[in-house]
Amino acid sequence: MMGHVVKAMLFDVQGTATDFHSTVCDEAQRISAGRYPGVDWPDVVRRWRASYFATLDAKQSRHDGWVSVQSVYRDALDSVLDECGAAGFSDAEREELTLAWQRLKPWPDAVPGLTRLKRKFIIGPLSNGNVALLTKMAKHSGIPWDLVFGSDLFGHFKPDPETYLGVAKLLDLEPGQVMLGAAHNNDLANARKCGLMTGFFPRPTEYGPHQKRDYAADQEWDVVATDLEDMATKLGV
Amino acid sequence: MMGHVVKAMLFDVQGTATDFHSTVCDEAQRISAGRYPGVDWPDVVRRWRASYFATLDAKQSRHDGWVSVQSVYRDALDSVLDECGAAGFSDAEREELTLAWQRLKPWPDAVPGLTRLKRKFIIGPLSNGNVALLTKMAKHSGIPWDLVFGSDLFGHFKPDPETYLGVAKLLDLEPGQVMLGAAHNNDLANARKCGLMTGFFPRPTEYGPHQKRDYAADQEWDVVATDLEDMATKLGV
Repeated sequence: MMGHVVKAMLFDVQGTATDFHSTVCDEAQRISAGRYPGVDWPDVVRRWRASYFATLDAKQSRHDGWVSVQSVYRDALDSVLDECGAAGFSDAEREELTLAWQRLKPWPDAVPGLTRLKRKFIIGPLSNGNVALLTKMAKHSGIPWDLVFGSDLFGHFKPDPETYLGVAKLLDLEPGQVMLGAAHNNDLANARKCGLMTGFFPRPTEYGPHQKRDYAADQEWDVVATDLEDMATKLGV
Repeated sequence: MMGHVVKAMLFDVQGTATDFHSTVCDEAQRISAGRYPGVDWPDVVRRWRASYFATLDAKQSRHDGWVSVQSVYRDALDSVLDECGAAGFSDAEREELTLAWQRLKPWPDAVPGLTRLKRKFIIGPLSNGNVALLTKMAKHSGIPWDLVFGSDLFGHFKPDPETYLGVAKLLDLEPGQVMLGAAHNNDLANARKCGLMTGFFPRPTEYGPHQKRDYAADQEWDVVATDLEDMATKLGV
């Protein structure tokens, strides 16, 4: 039973532990205060997230070194607002909206599920966010991490192997004693290539009503659950 | 009031948050099981700790790079046991005794005091221990750190400035927004040189009955308390 082998469980944060779609939509609507009735805010968030991924991919392919995800989101926002008809956001409003990524709300099962998992395992985030951002987010939301792994500790973003293997090294564990929990099949595939154990649970509304992927496990992951509470049950806690 | 300026409180672990003297003495007595009635175990622990500091100092002066404190303790143990008349410890017993440094018991005020401080501040260790050791110790003892700073994150031991300043950088804070809490005046003096805020509380039995130093603050630290519960009170939580 893998619950006896695994010593530490790391979790993706944006989308997996926290609900960025509703958090950022809500913040955009609050800050815009009805000034842009024609803007499709869920579309803004989808484009913003896609632009973030495109920037990370470009950084990785060019070996540009490490930048904070917060600066990536801020840099990506201007063109997204232009494209979506909300170019009138002030600089202060753009800064404030970008801060929403520091205040992502946990999914309802996240805090109770992680609290149970913490009884048996070392738990922490393994995110492309930096340590400061992930720490603030956890304090804000009550996520009870034992410790925080951000991309700045490794100077690399996922899916670089330095991140998955860096966690195992810092914890003085073999890769097979560490499980990544994520709602994203590609993140798990990259963790598995590094020898980590894998746990999947879907977040079918991660992108709001128009999600295109990750409704189900696309490999035989070591554990497949419905959410973090079910993950705790399946791992015997 | 400095409680409004400080965002994060970091704590020394060995001696400040945890009681190494009684933990290691108890383990030595348990493992030796009465075979060495003439051995002065408190003296063994004092010598072992002194040898640890001497090794760290030598490493720093020679710029040898980073090693784990666990290996420093293990390397120092053999000559200490020889000197103190306990050379009959087997290799397995020496390994087991060294593990005591991973299982240090918190002082009675540590978990309640830190639990209160956590409500207002980011809390974590800033220790020469490595991340894996500090994480295991916290899980074992119930210390509720938000995140864990070990010397392996910085490739330096205290008192190198890379440790004090490295924490501020990872937390995206100014040094003056970070307070070190410690029972050791020299640790606080080095933190102050880097611009950190400082909080002192004594551990008068840190070395058992024959302590020679750190009974009181020897500078005007920003906060002086009697223990971690009193520190929480003095910082308004």
